Amino acid sequence: MNKAVLKKILKVFLTLQWAKELPRQGFIALGFKRNEADSVAAHSWTTAMLTYFLASEMKKNGQKVDLNKAIKMALFHDMAETIVGDVGTFVKGMASGAFAGIEEEGLKWLVKDLPTTKEITSLVSEYTQRKTLEARLVKLADNLDALAQAKGVPAAKDALKYFKEVYHITKIPFHKTAVGMILKDEIEPERSWQKR
Amino acid sequence: MNKAVLKKILKVFLTLQWAKELPRQGFIALGFKRNEADSVAAHSWTTAMLTYFLASEMKKNGQKVDLNKAIKMALFHDMAETIVGDVGTFVKGMASGAFAGIEEEGLKWLVKDLPTTKEITSLVSEYTQRKTLEARLVKLADNLDALAQAKGVPAAKDALKYFKEVYHITKIPFHKTAVGMILKDEIEPERSWQKR
Amino acid sequence: MNKAVLKKILKVFLTLQWAKELPRQGFIALGFKRNEADSVAAHSWTTAMLTYFLASEMKKNGQKVDLNKAIKMALFHDMAETIVGDVGTFVKGMASGAFAGIEEEGLKWLVKDLPTTKEITSLVSEYTQRKTLEARLVKLADNLDALAQAKGVPAAKDALKYFKEVYHITKIPFHKTAVGMILKDEIEPERSWQKR
Amino acid sequence: MNKAVLKKILKVFLTLQWAKELPRQGFIALGFKRNEADSVAAHSWTTAMLTYFLASEMKKNGQKVDLNKAIKMALFHDMAETIVGDVGTFVKGMASGAFAGIEEEGLKWLVKDLPTTKEITSLVSEYTQRKTLEARLVKLADNLDALAQAKGVPAAKDALKYFKEVYHITKIPFHKTAVGMILKDEIEPERSWQKR
Amino acid sequence: MNKAVLKKILKVFLTLQWAKELPRQGFIALGFKRNEADSVAAHSWTTAMLTYFLASEMKKNGQKVDLNKAIKMALFHDMAETIVGDVGTFVKGMASGAFAGIEEEGLKWLVKDLPTTKEITSLVSEYTQRKTLEARLVKLADNLDALAQAKGVPAAKDALKYFKEVYHITKIPFHKTAVGMILKDEIEPERSWQKR
Amino acid sequence: MNKAVLKKILKVFLTLQWAKELPRQGFIALGFKRNEADSVAAHSWTTAMLTYFLASEMKKNGQKVDLNKAIKMALFHDMAETIVGDVGTFVKGMASGAFAGIEEEGLKWLVKDLPTTKEITSLVSEYTQRKTLEARLVKLADNLDALAQAKGVPAAKDALKYFKEVYHITKIPFHKTAVGMILKDEIEPERSWQKR
Repeated sequence: MNKAVLKKILKVFLTLQWAKELPRQGFIALGFKRNEADSVAAHSWTTAMLTYFLASEMKKNGQKVDLNKAIKMALFHDMAETIVGDVGTFVKGMASGAFAGIEEEGLKWLVKDLPTTKEITSLVSEYTQRKTLEARLVKLADNLDALAQAKGVPAAKDALKYFKEVYHITKIPFHKTAVGMILKDEIEPERSWQKR
Repeated sequence: MNKAVLKKILKVFLTLQWAKELPRQGFIALGFKRNEADSVAAHSWTTAMLTYFLASEMKKNGQKVDLNKAIKMALFHDMAETIVGDVGTFVKGMASGAFAGIEEEGLKWLVKDLPTTKEITSLVSEYTQRKTLEARLVKLADNLDALAQAKGVPAAKDALKYFKEVYHITKIPFHKTAVGMILKDEIEPERSWQKR
Repeated sequence: MNKAVLKKILKVFLTLQWAKELPRQGFIALGFKRNEADSVAAHSWTTAMLTYFLASEMKKNGQKVDLNKAIKMALFHDMAETIVGDVGTFVKGMASGAFAGIEEEGLKWLVKDLPTTKEITSLVSEYTQRKTLEARLVKLADNLDALAQAKGVPAAKDALKYFKEVYHITKIPFHKTAVGMILKDEIEPERSWQKR
Repeated sequence: MNKAVLKKILKVFLTLQWAKELPRQGFIALGFKRNEADSVAAHSWTTAMLTYFLASEMKKNGQKVDLNKAIKMALFHDMAETIVGDVGTFVKGMASGAFAGIEEEGLKWLVKDLPTTKEITSLVSEYTQRKTLEARLVKLADNLDALAQAKGVPAAKDALKYFKEVYHITKIPFHKTAVGMILKDEIEPERSWQKR
Repeated sequence: MNKAVLKKILKVFLTLQWAKELPRQGFIALGFKRNEADSVAAHSWTTAMLTYFLASEMKKNGQKVDLNKAIKMALFHDMAETIVGDVGTFVKGMASGAFAGIEEEGLKWLVKDLPTTKEITSLVSEYTQRKTLEARLVKLADNLDALAQAKGVPAAKDALKYFKEVYHITKIPFHKTAVGMILKDEIEPERSWQKR
Repeated sequence: MNKAVLKKILKVFLTLQWAKELPRQGFIALGFKRNEADSVAAHSWTTAMLTYFLASEMKKNGQKVDLNKAIKMALFHDMAETIVGDVGTFVKGMASGAFAGIEEEGLKWLVKDLPTTKEITSLVSEYTQRKTLEARLVKLADNLDALAQAKGVPAAKDALKYFKEVYHITKIPFHKTAVGMILKDEIEPERSWQKR
């Protein structure tokens, strides 16, 4: 591999290390302590994993979903936060036009020297627009991951209701089912082995 | 006290609690782990304390500095971050006009129902413009506090040089002296009692 | 500024950095984990902010309260803990005379070379005696801040009752109202923007 | 989506949440404090990101690498640790046959009810054998991520040498180049914007 | 003391430092955040303290219990985890024969150069077999300590039931009484001084 | 066991849980971040372990040391801190008579209802006086444990010198040897298995 390209790749890679330490700031506004919030990096992994599980099943059932595109979209969907931070919905809400632009510009800056700049910015843009099936699926996974994180933190109990508000955005029928099952404690993580 | 006013005050007060948990995000970009970064609240206290120490001495030496105004400015200087987060200099740099506006709007939103909305927004605005002696003094204290925090974290060693870059902004002669004394380890925190 | 004086100021300032990391120890006795307790520094900021909000309103309503004195008192009220630690009420209770003396001596030691030694020790002493309106107001703010912190930590649920016990100390009528409003969840931190 | 299948998927997803909190235990044996170690989840994301960057470039250069397979392999490579923990190389070394079997069994147990059990176990098995180009590339990314993490923690300085020992395993020519560039500080994460 | 022996002792001692940072991993599977789990070292101390309290009382009541042996057993009972980690019951359950062997081998490796290798391995082996009164008493203390830890973490509420499952293992009559008293909140830690 | 006695024992046991979360405060004055300081509980375990290793070897060499007494002394030596906190040497230095009394009273309060009140207070008192061989040995272990902790935290580099100052207190010949070996990096924790 060309040494100059390798260097550019490693530079972005070292920058992405910050995402391991950045708390997902929105959770702090829900009353989380600093260490109860997950990191941008950890959230991105569980989101990508759930996206993979769901897209695989959808494909199996004959739905036209591009599995590999969806996985990459999930991997990239929050990477701009490494640079611009997990700015609250507040800022986004206040000046949506202006701020959306800033986040977009942040991403461009971060990935500008990568061999795959175009693929990344294009997938994140697709995600932001929430139109394609893949974009809506990743949003669904992103939302369920926030719910899973919030469920474990008692301070967030009052805020669990907010997680129902994205139904209309994803328009994926099983989104509501999934939120319901998690909220009603119908699913328990694998613990059968603990009883042995 | 009127109950409705009390309620409005307590609402802002409960919102400010988040600042206890928000890491100063810029430090993470310098290589800090999440718990090596101080909180917005803790930083604001040490900044206000140093402002008080320095302004008292300046006043004693006959300089025209409004001590009480400076203390309040220090207390308020980062309070908007409770809402908009400690967004990196990056975002600020990219679209300074646009973003400055967002931070300002965030502050207004946060304090809009307080009896002292005007005093707060006016002091933060004065701070941002860096023109009055008080504004420059608080900036100096803000800068020395970041330096003190960074000195204790080895990962930040390479970044210590950045702390010299604000000399030209504060134009306070002893700013450079202070940075120099801290960087050269000429000052050690009170430890004489440990030798007993 | 005289270099020797600057050095003395910076020495105290560097010592105060410890307060960013010191957990408020009393919370651990209520069942908090280490990172659920706020720091002495962060607590001091929110206390000073609430003091400012309340004193401003009281003044507006014609009450004779020295706003600037109250703010400084709030800033200084726990600074001795940087040196002597947040020793439990236990120790204080056991040997109140003896220990009060130790805390006082700790403060003197810490600030002995500052240009404003006298103002600091005098304000802390006034605070400890809980007689003046400013002292009682700062105690009220100190108490509400502990309540706000405790409310977010489920382990402290059983201990919330203790926060009612200072009514008789502050003798400020709206103290009880404020505690009641916070305990009954009548106030929610600013979250309207999250619904957007 | 079939509700029973959705439930099975969500069960694994909720179990994977643990990986956000599990410290990479090997780092503690290098002298890291608990919060200096990254989580299994965060490590998996940065590893997948680097795998994507490198595989994309390799493909562009005409190498036969299956990009999508490599990304999935990176996502899955440590997921068994969610169940069996990040057991030290010690245990692995002592009874390699026996333990390898345990880790494999742990993975099977975790994913046994997923629609894609086979794909996951097959990719992890391929990764463990380190024979295909994709397996060696993911190992390389896994290794560089550990190096990036270790570089930021001074306690690990003495252990940086261990990171050179996997050259012979990956047999990818630029592995050595990359380790060298990171160790020699030839690459600095994106910070140009901080100078503005 | 012979310098070579001292060196061997200090080597094990420095290795044991890791136990201060290792979270008790099983708690994470119950939904704890990383910093809500206690460390292997801290758990070992409280277990040894409770063992001492209970064994002293039992002896006083005429039961034949070797107090000093019990204390040492409690001190050593989890020290192998410093090397092999706090591997979940899962792994232990899956391949009990195989894994038990690994843990045993880990301990031997860790203590192999100590003057007291034999005493340590023999006491840990006795503990594992749960036959002698001392072994069952230490298991009881180990279990109550996990219960005390879990009680303080709301996320573990659903898992409190698991703590009843070791009755049949210890066969110590007051085990059940103790679990009951703790679960029913009949005992509150020393707080009388807080009311002063 | 008598239920009333069991209840008293469990009350102290639940109170001791706080020691798992209390940072050793003195380290914060050396520049440690909150999570870089070990807990009072974890420190007590490693101190007891080292005491056991050393006393065993001394006994083997024919020295008259009461091994079981030494272990218990190590277990108890800091337990009063659960109540009075790890108050800085400062306070102790300032008013040694007065404060020593407070710590003693704190311990008495904590253990007053235990069946073994006398043994505990007597052993802690013996430790404080530093006269018997066991007391000096536990002090040595306490000191080496602080050194081991400090070595891993770069911020404490300048403070390592303080650890040499207790030679004259313990008067145990190998104390100096041990400090020297640790400071000079002559001993590395068990890592041979990492090279496999």
